[in-house]
Amino acid sequence: MMRRLYFHRDSKRGVAGTFNWLVDEVKELGEALKTEDKEALENEFADVIAWLASLANVTNVDLEKASLNKYDNKCPKCGHSPCQCTF
Amino acid sequence: MMRRLYFHRDSKRGVAGTFNWLVDEVKELGEALKTEDKEALENEFADVIAWLASLANVTNVDLEKASLNKYDNKCPKCGHSPCQCTF
Repeated sequence: MMRRLYFHRDSKRGVAGTFNWLVDEVKELGEALKTEDKEALENEFADVIAWLASLANVTNVDLEKASLNKYDNKCPKCGHSPCQCTF
Repeated sequence: MMRRLYFHRDSKRGVAGTFNWLVDEVKELGEALKTEDKEALENEFADVIAWLASLANVTNVDLEKASLNKYDNKCPKCGHSPCQCTF
């Protein structure tokens, strides 16, 4: 969906510019965490995942595939579900 | 899935600690963007979305619902698909 909505803009902006936007959105999420405004917080979560998807699109990464490849129903470090890592 | 795998750890670490981890993972993604290592890059994308999900879990936000509530098949700013914002 993000590719359909925004790829024409994301691809013009490029990798570095899109990463910088992601970083800014993460900072805004950090600010929203300090408030009691649940709607604003949900908005910032949405923006972070949206910009992460935009960045994946411009770097030609399949975000869903990359995520499920690493986190495939068990912890990638200890191999258990739930995670039983001791560190 | 992230709740099942990690909530016992995430909830102990808390909101601030989990946000700090997310920030570190975003930095690592930024480093991976500078390399040609596609597998490492995919790994870092996976880690960022994983830690974003962990943070959503400890703040009691439904990440999917929050995302689709804001980005519901059209740009939340201009209302078009694809986005036709002019700024």
